[in-house]
Amino acid sequence: MQYKLGELAEVINADLKGDPDCVISGVGTLQNAGSDQLSFFTNRRYARFLKSTTAAAVVLSVEDMNDCPVYSLVSKDPYLAYAKAVRYMNPEQSSDPGVHASAIVSVTASVHSSACICANSYIGEHAQIGENVYVGPGCVVEDNSVIGKGSRLVANVSVCHNIEIGERVLIHAGVVIGADGFGITNEEGKWLKIPQLGSVEIKDDVDIGANTTIDRGALENTLIEEGVKIDNQVQIGHNSIIGAYTAIAGCAVIAGSVTIGKRCMIGGATAIAGHIVITDDVVITGLSGVTNSIKKPGTYSGAMTITDNLTWRKNMARFRHLNELAIRLKAVEDKLDKSS
Amino acid sequence: MQYKLGELAEVINADLKGDPDCVISGVGTLQNAGSDQLSFFTNRRYARFLKSTTAAAVVLSVEDMNDCPVYSLVSKDPYLAYAKAVRYMNPEQSSDPGVHASAIVSVTASVHSSACICANSYIGEHAQIGENVYVGPGCVVEDNSVIGKGSRLVANVSVCHNIEIGERVLIHAGVVIGADGFGITNEEGKWLKIPQLGSVEIKDDVDIGANTTIDRGALENTLIEEGVKIDNQVQIGHNSIIGAYTAIAGCAVIAGSVTIGKRCMIGGATAIAGHIVITDDVVITGLSGVTNSIKKPGTYSGAMTITDNLTWRKNMARFRHLNELAIRLKAVEDKLDKSS
Amino acid sequence: MQYKLGELAEVINADLKGDPDCVISGVGTLQNAGSDQLSFFTNRRYARFLKSTTAAAVVLSVEDMNDCPVYSLVSKDPYLAYAKAVRYMNPEQSSDPGVHASAIVSVTASVHSSACICANSYIGEHAQIGENVYVGPGCVVEDNSVIGKGSRLVANVSVCHNIEIGERVLIHAGVVIGADGFGITNEEGKWLKIPQLGSVEIKDDVDIGANTTIDRGALENTLIEEGVKIDNQVQIGHNSIIGAYTAIAGCAVIAGSVTIGKRCMIGGATAIAGHIVITDDVVITGLSGVTNSIKKPGTYSGAMTITDNLTWRKNMARFRHLNELAIRLKAVEDKLDKSS
Repeated sequence: MQYKLGELAEVINADLKGDPDCVISGVGTLQNAGSDQLSFFTNRRYARFLKSTTAAAVVLSVEDMNDCPVYSLVSKDPYLAYAKAVRYMNPEQSSDPGVHASAIVSVTASVHSSACICANSYIGEHAQIGENVYVGPGCVVEDNSVIGKGSRLVANVSVCHNIEIGERVLIHAGVVIGADGFGITNEEGKWLKIPQLGSVEIKDDVDIGANTTIDRGALENTLIEEGVKIDNQVQIGHNSIIGAYTAIAGCAVIAGSVTIGKRCMIGGATAIAGHIVITDDVVITGLSGVTNSIKKPGTYSGAMTITDNLTWRKNMARFRHLNELAIRLKAVEDKLDKSS
Repeated sequence: MQYKLGELAEVINADLKGDPDCVISGVGTLQNAGSDQLSFFTNRRYARFLKSTTAAAVVLSVEDMNDCPVYSLVSKDPYLAYAKAVRYMNPEQSSDPGVHASAIVSVTASVHSSACICANSYIGEHAQIGENVYVGPGCVVEDNSVIGKGSRLVANVSVCHNIEIGERVLIHAGVVIGADGFGITNEEGKWLKIPQLGSVEIKDDVDIGANTTIDRGALENTLIEEGVKIDNQVQIGHNSIIGAYTAIAGCAVIAGSVTIGKRCMIGGATAIAGHIVITDDVVITGLSGVTNSIKKPGTYSGAMTITDNLTWRKNMARFRHLNELAIRLKAVEDKLDKSS
Repeated sequence: MQYKLGELAEVINADLKGDPDCVISGVGTLQNAGSDQLSFFTNRRYARFLKSTTAAAVVLSVEDMNDCPVYSLVSKDPYLAYAKAVRYMNPEQSSDPGVHASAIVSVTASVHSSACICANSYIGEHAQIGENVYVGPGCVVEDNSVIGKGSRLVANVSVCHNIEIGERVLIHAGVVIGADGFGITNEEGKWLKIPQLGSVEIKDDVDIGANTTIDRGALENTLIEEGVKIDNQVQIGHNSIIGAYTAIAGCAVIAGSVTIGKRCMIGGATAIAGHIVITDDVVITGLSGVTNSIKKPGTYSGAMTITDNLTWRKNMARFRHLNELAIRLKAVEDKLDKSS
């Protein structure tokens, strides 16, 4: 497909410095875009690439315009503007409707005629597959689960029984939704499993990354609100609630009965302990441990970061005695106070 | 199904304060249970919900009895008692025996007539599927593997070759058992893979959470003892041994050749380095790093926890010089000692 | 199969102290190897087992020769020598060529006649499956992807569209290659997904552990160079580049646009933040957080390690005030300086 630069400027609401009839046929990085490609500049780390770019045009901020050797699309939020251009040039493709001969669809399941059910997938009893849903190869949708309009299960996804998934939900390969929560209790040294009777509700416009797991609730449901974006290999425990438009980066670990507010950003590999409540608009940077609730919006951190191994060993050895160190400092202060 | 309160009190060995003929048809949370539902109270975080509950009856401790506005089932261990009630009201369902037409069962495999082999699953050469085993849709059981009586593989599970799985083992979706351990050695800058000749043995009554991976041993077997409960996305390296009735929470990372004792509890996202030995009855809280063996039962911790980002930055900057700080403190102490 | 000790000594280039005609039929640990098995000794942790071994022969260093009660195969690098012996005695088995009747191969796909396409697998449009490739049960290879000569996809692997995989690549069960990178941008409080137009390139001789995920690039490709070895449950974000012969242990988290050099070793559960550049020959120990680029080869660490829970609580409480502690120490030093 080909687009005119003027058309793109209009679509992304940018101010065009250049020829509106210039033909654009795709996007590329500053380093590698060719003369029919659009690029973008938002990260000063890559400033040197702007000056030598051979892209047809670059989406950027007004303050970077003079450094741009080619046409500019000037925007207040160039990354968002660029994103819109990419989305415009790469619309989501719909799949051909129909059930592949090798797919197994239970007789009591209901599959919309516009849905695409791929090879070797399985749809359980009384499951409901909505309009334009895509169920990729090797996916399993178990009994009584509902997949809303326009949702996509990429490949080898497992949706357990009685799960409710909204519209336009994108579920990447290897995801498991609705495994039993980790509910056990001890009886004379042995663990007794507690049946997990709740479900998982996933609202509209949620994305779920590859190999992520979201457990079903013990009694009530685990709930992922509208527009939540979840990266790969995230674990969400039973009865947790993730507020609308929150983003969770890769390998974050959210234990059971956690409540996260709206518009939060949870960094990669961050772990949140059970029963924690996090208010709206909280940012937690990566690899942090959260063991107390967060009542005030803001940015929170708790990761240990690297040094050379020798320094780390010495510092960790001291850390193990940090409390004593503090007590010794207090003693020194007291002595000085007395002597002064 | 409906149950009488008196019947439930007997099943869970609780002291009933109320009408034994009261009809119970399910369980619910204190907040939401209706007048035909049983609830429980064990976490003081939720004390306000007890006072206003509309449940038919609540399982609780004797000291909370007076705060309960409805019938009580008084127990010394109310969570355990509640668990037993839920289990009684929700017995495990057996699946219809038979091999689905789309399942591929090798001719040399042996499948018990009571087993249920679901759509698009695969059973390899000489594999043995025991009595009442459930192999869910999309599961793969490779050559020579044995699945013991009453075990369940939920969906898209991969059991590699020559694996031995005991009775009543529950394996959630996406689990991989018996991938090669990470055994490599370096030859002039390149890695040489060491064939992994061991297997995985999983004893009776083990539960394994979604997308967990348990590697096969290098020479001898990786071993998961009886009654171990493993949450989602846990990694267990080759030749590790997990002692009976140990519980491992989500996303814990257990490297190779680790030995964990009986009745331990390993917190979520905790990582245990290779060749570590942990004795019985050890609790390790979440997000901890374990780099030394643990010889004494007790509770151990090593997670860094969050503060606001600014405080964290300042503290981490100081931490990088903690050793110097300690040396400076010593110098101050010496100076004071001399001057006094 | 049976081997003579002299033959093995030659294969692994070791100095044999013993009978070259001694028959070896396998390998075992020092503790358990029988009189027809080869063992090895490299880890002093297990010194006591060397003295009482009943193996036929042991691969070891010259300095340990005198402690060995049985035949010795003396090598400068006994672990490498042992690895070579194991590889020699356990050559990779080739699978019978052919497409299983239950596999679905698109008519436009090209599958080499020597490839083995197993039960319930799926090969998409225009995909290319090379010579001697093994596509295990339940695997999905989507449209336009290429699997090079001799590569193996074990089971339930998902290779998304337009991915390029080299020769002799080993991909364990549950792996997902080419899911969309986590590219989102915010528009008035809601997240907008940025189409991920790049691919994943995996070069020759790469191993990828179970349930690992490697995302496709946003514009250009995510790249795994030759001979990289990746353990289980590793996450590699979009546009990251992993240099040749780097090894990445289990559950490491590599965010987007990270560049890791050649011959690095990344410890288990270590997390590397986005846009970080790590030079060649860097070792990062496990559970570390990397938030700055590393320009010098060497060993780096940043994990917090456990103490008993009480000590940890006290130390963490002090850590939250470490900056103040340092300021107080400075004040004490100043006071002492003035008074002296």
